[in-house]
Amino acid sequence: MTTARQVVAEYWAAAEARDWARFGELVAEDVVYEGPQTRERVQGRAAYVRFNVEAFPGDWHLSVQRIIGEDRQAASWIEFTGADGTQPGLCFFELDPDDRILRITDFWPDPYELPASRSHLVERY
Amino acid sequence: MTTARQVVAEYWAAAEARDWARFGELVAEDVVYEGPQTRERVQGRAAYVRFNVEAFPGDWHLSVQRIIGEDRQAASWIEFTGADGTQPGLCFFELDPDDRILRITDFWPDPYELPASRSHLVERY
Repeated sequence: MTTARQVVAEYWAAAEARDWARFGELVAEDVVYEGPQTRERVQGRAAYVRFNVEAFPGDWHLSVQRIIGEDRQAASWIEFTGADGTQPGLCFFELDPDDRILRITDFWPDPYELPASRSHLVERY
Repeated sequence: MTTARQVVAEYWAAAEARDWARFGELVAEDVVYEGPQTRERVQGRAAYVRFNVEAFPGDWHLSVQRIIGEDRQAASWIEFTGADGTQPGLCFFELDPDDRILRITDFWPDPYELPASRSHLVERY
């Protein structure tokens, strides 16, 4: 198992456990989180821990589907279940030389209607 | 560079070049593609090549942002530019023992409004 994969596995385990002290240790002091879909950004460990504690109120759980790590990079696919149901969450990570998470880019795809233009080329499940 | 990363790099290069013969060689005879957002599935090499040739009409280009490979798995983040503008595309791959792509899970996140409930916790960019 790569270090990057291990760090991301611990990151998601800490989030699921609401172990915010451990969660904070896994990210760099100068961590940068970006969500390209909303163009939101959070900079710095304290702000990023607060974001995770406060931005997603109510009960929620996450289930790791896939973590792939190579060198100082990783990607994860989780399923996040909250008040609005279950949704995939896809993250790309970069680690710093101390193996702390330095950059996180986060994507949350929603369901959409299959375009009629390709409906004859696919099955549905 | 891992084999998985190299195979996915060749996959995207073949798609961008419309080199469908090479594209087909990179996927397994029994490849399975799934798009969870629409619950669409394509099974088998011939159907999957046809899907890629026909399902996305008009000119389009893709730009690889990130490929991460570990063992027989990989993830990629591309930016896809077509008639509707530029959109991120996120894929998870599994390779078979012959290093051909056996499973592809594909996500296309759209922009959405930042929820007011977390607007005080983030910057915008």
